[in-house]
Amino acid sequence: MLAFTGCRLDRADHIRADRDALAAQMGWRARLLALDGLLPGMDESGALAWGSLADAPPEAELVFLGLDDGKPCFAAVPECGDNAPRMANPALWAAMAALSPGDLALYGAARSLVDWHARHRFCASCGCGTALAKGGWQRNCERCGAQHFPRTDPVAITLVEHGDGRLMLGRGLGWPEGRFSALAGFVEPGESIEEGVAREVLEESGVRVRDVTYVASQPWPFPSQLMIGCHAWADDDAVTMDTTEMAEIAWFTRAEVAAAMAGEEGARFLKPLDQAIATHLLRWWLAR
Amino acid sequence: MLAFTGCRLDRADHIRADRDALAAQMGWRARLLALDGLLPGMDESGALAWGSLADAPPEAELVFLGLDDGKPCFAAVPECGDNAPRMANPALWAAMAALSPGDLALYGAARSLVDWHARHRFCASCGCGTALAKGGWQRNCERCGAQHFPRTDPVAITLVEHGDGRLMLGRGLGWPEGRFSALAGFVEPGESIEEGVAREVLEESGVRVRDVTYVASQPWPFPSQLMIGCHAWADDDAVTMDTTEMAEIAWFTRAEVAAAMAGEEGARFLKPLDQAIATHLLRWWLAR
Repeated sequence: MLAFTGCRLDRADHIRADRDALAAQMGWRARLLALDGLLPGMDESGALAWGSLADAPPEAELVFLGLDDGKPCFAAVPECGDNAPRMANPALWAAMAALSPGDLALYGAARSLVDWHARHRFCASCGCGTALAKGGWQRNCERCGAQHFPRTDPVAITLVEHGDGRLMLGRGLGWPEGRFSALAGFVEPGESIEEGVAREVLEESGVRVRDVTYVASQPWPFPSQLMIGCHAWADDDAVTMDTTEMAEIAWFTRAEVAAAMAGEEGARFLKPLDQAIATHLLRWWLAR
Repeated sequence: MLAFTGCRLDRADHIRADRDALAAQMGWRARLLALDGLLPGMDESGALAWGSLADAPPEAELVFLGLDDGKPCFAAVPECGDNAPRMANPALWAAMAALSPGDLALYGAARSLVDWHARHRFCASCGCGTALAKGGWQRNCERCGAQHFPRTDPVAITLVEHGDGRLMLGRGLGWPEGRFSALAGFVEPGESIEEGVAREVLEESGVRVRDVTYVASQPWPFPSQLMIGCHAWADDDAVTMDTTEMAEIAWFTRAEVAAAMAGEEGARFLKPLDQAIATHLLRWWLAR
């Protein structure tokens, strides 16, 4: 299963939309996800820690995450969001490695939501303050009435394969030496997924692709991407790298990819993070 | 080819990011897309109409759409965006039917972008004014420096098929009598595409699905969706409809779908709009 998928909560949309039903959930049975800023609070067993609604700061906005086996789950919006997601935060990576898959998915959904609220307290349309609505799945402008919804930004991430069986991977600027992954970029307004894949790969590598196919998808909560994993074919392996985004782009044989994924000493590259969809894509490709 | 795909512009990301290169494009060769509010301006031949940058209001923000056979193309941000996309606008539908596929795709991309700018003149993080940046592919806050990017909202739209070969379709509240389409909903933060499909179908119809597969995708500029077309299987056809969203949900045989798609008199339902991905999905399903 892909990391950040498999959240056990019932999102219970019918409760979000019903003010009375939502109020009825905010009683003594309600649980509050423990967060330290945007980091997960954890108990001694390495599970997500929970408290009661009384643990939230008196003025904090509360987001209704859903029902966990019937128990209403909430999270409080922290004072600050994360304007520049710090993927290099060691506490975050330690937590991500320790949490169970179900807890990781729950944390990811909660983090994306409360971070969005913390960074969207004002109306983009008129500049006035906004208030949380629909249990935290919407914000409404207090002046112009504009409705705002949590963002989910689609990102296409693509394994580009040459006809001869080699795979093109890249190392982004600022990444650790030796770390390679699939090329990725946001799908822009006015593009299909397939068009986004072709444009991003061309921009970053100068390589034209054909026959784009979908493989798998994954939510990625830094801050709120929908990672759309694809495969595409290339007929020409000549690379013209975009040096404003990429540090290295190279082609790898099946044996080289297998060695890297097995973590072999002397492998030509370091595999992507375990939680990243790129790892899933590379395993899928090797198994195919 | 799916409507709103196949835009002929080279988005030329390297120009957006380079202030001097962008300025150099804003000369006498530049073309300005004619827009009447958010509606497309068209010439006598039914093609998109173009003017020069001098046609834009003096204070208008300009978005760099890309290069059309080397010619720089821009659009001006209108005074107002569309807070409640009026799909029932007859002028819009007439234009959509008249434009060539390439022009329709170009219009869709431009519309999504300028509409986003018109509705995002303020910083959601601090409420201060924002200024257009990167040729219109970003806005920056003038006070807190927060960066904002055009939205693309992923929507999963799903053909649900029963093991016996029937298809579940629905009629949304407010839709014309007899018009049915595939169930659809936004993919939320913390969900994969497949999880979004399963949740939406369950919420709207009470039907549980399995084996979700991806079929095709399409940008939809009202205001800026990425439609992700899927297929899923259902084992139980018992429907419990969400009456806050849906007016009718029903199962249709292959013959009934074929009759509707052929526009036969007496067909059990009216097919979706030609430009909608639902039409593509239903044709794909019949041809399979």
